[in-house]
Amino acid sequence: MKAVIISCGTEIVTGQCVDTNSAWLSGRLTAGGVEVVAHVSIGDEVGRIAEAIRRGREEADLILITGGLGPTRDDVTRDAMALALETPLQENAEALAQIREFFRQWQREMPESNKVQAMIPQGCEVIPNPKGTAPGIAYWATTPNPLLTKEGDSASPLTKGGLRGVIALPGVPSEMKEIFEACVAPRIGKEGGSCTLIARLNCFGIGEARIGEILADLMARGRNPLVGTTASQAVITIRILASGENASAVRTLLDTDRSEIRRRLGVAVFGEENDTLHGIVARLLIERKQTIVTAESCTGGLLGKLLTDVPGSSAYFVRGYIVYSNQSKSELLQVPGDVIEKQGAVSEEVARLLAENARRAADCDYALSITGIAGPSGGSTEKPVGLVYIGLATESGVEVRRVLLGDHLSREEIRDRACKTALNMLRIKLLS
Amino acid sequence: MKAVIISCGTEIVTGQCVDTNSAWLSGRLTAGGVEVVAHVSIGDEVGRIAEAIRRGREEADLILITGGLGPTRDDVTRDAMALALETPLQENAEALAQIREFFRQWQREMPESNKVQAMIPQGCEVIPNPKGTAPGIAYWATTPNPLLTKEGDSASPLTKGGLRGVIALPGVPSEMKEIFEACVAPRIGKEGGSCTLIARLNCFGIGEARIGEILADLMARGRNPLVGTTASQAVITIRILASGENASAVRTLLDTDRSEIRRRLGVAVFGEENDTLHGIVARLLIERKQTIVTAESCTGGLLGKLLTDVPGSSAYFVRGYIVYSNQSKSELLQVPGDVIEKQGAVSEEVARLLAENARRAADCDYALSITGIAGPSGGSTEKPVGLVYIGLATESGVEVRRVLLGDHLSREEIRDRACKTALNMLRIKLLS
Repeated sequence: MKAVIISCGTEIVTGQCVDTNSAWLSGRLTAGGVEVVAHVSIGDEVGRIAEAIRRGREEADLILITGGLGPTRDDVTRDAMALALETPLQENAEALAQIREFFRQWQREMPESNKVQAMIPQGCEVIPNPKGTAPGIAYWATTPNPLLTKEGDSASPLTKGGLRGVIALPGVPSEMKEIFEACVAPRIGKEGGSCTLIARLNCFGIGEARIGEILADLMARGRNPLVGTTASQAVITIRILASGENASAVRTLLDTDRSEIRRRLGVAVFGEENDTLHGIVARLLIERKQTIVTAESCTGGLLGKLLTDVPGSSAYFVRGYIVYSNQSKSELLQVPGDVIEKQGAVSEEVARLLAENARRAADCDYALSITGIAGPSGGSTEKPVGLVYIGLATESGVEVRRVLLGDHLSREEIRDRACKTALNMLRIKLLS
Repeated sequence: MKAVIISCGTEIVTGQCVDTNSAWLSGRLTAGGVEVVAHVSIGDEVGRIAEAIRRGREEADLILITGGLGPTRDDVTRDAMALALETPLQENAEALAQIREFFRQWQREMPESNKVQAMIPQGCEVIPNPKGTAPGIAYWATTPNPLLTKEGDSASPLTKGGLRGVIALPGVPSEMKEIFEACVAPRIGKEGGSCTLIARLNCFGIGEARIGEILADLMARGRNPLVGTTASQAVITIRILASGENASAVRTLLDTDRSEIRRRLGVAVFGEENDTLHGIVARLLIERKQTIVTAESCTGGLLGKLLTDVPGSSAYFVRGYIVYSNQSKSELLQVPGDVIEKQGAVSEEVARLLAENARRAADCDYALSITGIAGPSGGSTEKPVGLVYIGLATESGVEVRRVLLGDHLSREEIRDRACKTALNMLRIKLLS
């Protein structure tokens, strides 16, 4: 079974926003054994969206559309869907009742403009949206549509070519996801045919070309599983895509490659699937019932933010010091003013004292400190932009690592890399 | 002039990563007066990528391709481009020298596998990549290509249909951007024809449907400028797209709408283009030479991170307290244990004390405090997930706002909204 995902919005093709919906839908579809052959993004134009729906028929069974179901005039997916389905729009009482109920629950009055969201192409199913005012719209070719499918009519525009469904979902990610899970996902599982399984291994502290060399034989084109790599923000993800007719044989192929890759790369693999460095560190700290405190300068709270992204983080994260000014380093964590003056705020000694003193003050098992030059200015020949010192204090002492992240990175990237390097130091310490 | 953007990568169509390159390129192209008619994402398959390039010809002058130029075997954009251009790949000495130089600069040995990145379709231009090993590849139809364009040969696959160029850029965003700016952007400015200008106004604290009502007349379809809205993480962006033949007339159209929208929405508009709430707050603090300290519980450092995202943030951001545990609230910011016990850590009184005491300890003009229930668990009937108290301390006292963000939001969204609400409170205080 093949799918095409269409995202609608002038904001997307003019670059005002990034389409994250297609990636999420692709992940869910791939996991369900559906091959996504393309993502297509187009502006808020009825004709072009309708054309993309028609084109999708040539290569896919399932067309998923996101966006353009809102209450404003640039929301034209309803119209485009009606055009492609060759059926008129009509006010749907069920949809209107759902929208009214949404406003009632939030004790707000329904603006008149929201009524347009109840205009549904005739013969389509309305999918309730518990999180917002835009209901989803589904046309299932397997459900006979009195308007479009007459008995024995194989020439209906939507049953010829093997199309199984056209589903329009809201553009707001949380609403889109909720509706997909409730209405679309259950139908996908029932599809027969070939089976595709995908697995990911995430690495840190190793380059993509080096991984490509270590895994060269596994990464041959045409091989099954198909192994590929992607670099994103210094994390290299290894993707294993196995396919075949028999689910358990496919599972075995996948597991064999995964074990082999883990064996070759060792500790460089920090996790699988959506695992993050901070998520893995959180898991290890929880398992070991240990605690952590942070002392951050150039990252300004990002390390604390990452460590508290995980639900239940109060089990291990106690407190954090954002010691941005020199004065705050001295006042909050007793870094002597003359150390800062002589060695500089970005120095091994300051990183050491921040970690050591934070750990003692918070009475934690671990303290991580970060001090560096995030740029874009403030660098010098001896201390260039991208120079970061990371301290890790444990009961047996403090380890400080000097990293030179390179001035080809942005401020945001330097701060991101600094936190990841810190988390990776702690991860390796926790594993040793 | 029209463009199609093609992003290549199995990691994209299987949902392993989000394509942010197309959005960035669209923004740059739109700003340059180029209409982006579609984004298309496809997996690492030579045939499909080549087909997408050919299809792009039907609707665009410029085809921009991102991704698939890396050193591993799943990087097939070079091959697909050669196939679509009907020209062989050959090792390019200039490209190879650039790749060798990149490794020399970083004092590393070049892995043998990187050599494949110097394979370039014959007749194409190599675009240096100062940030990585993948050079860009450009075919310019206006530059006669001896292989593809024979004199008087209007049937050459790349000159018929008005195609001006096919350009392949690396998938790593920072490298892609650098090459685009250096090589592609200068060529776009020289294009004649119609002019398109785009402007964005960003709002916070007002709903999308309400904005749609206030701006209904301006948002009529077919109107010029075309006005649309997009909601993303509680920020509503109003997009104004003006077009015409004459640049100064287009500019006037745009300016008139922008002024009118600002007049109607007042303080709900916090900024333009890529302005963020934290960026605007930073600008206002710098202008007023004022300082801020943060005291965060449930946001765990995110507010500090946002306030230090801006280069030069040390001018106004002094320090932050991440008081995650109750003990840290008492030890670092003197919130009495019995207040926490009686009223709870998530309470008006705790928010008040955190802001007041942080402001005094750090001797700042402002202190922002946040305490709340980010979820997904930990809520109760009286204090549900999404309940957040935000304190803003100034020299004239502390203002505390209770916000109920709703349990339909994720932990990440609740933390994001809490910080944005806090920043917006400060913004309005700074403007008053």
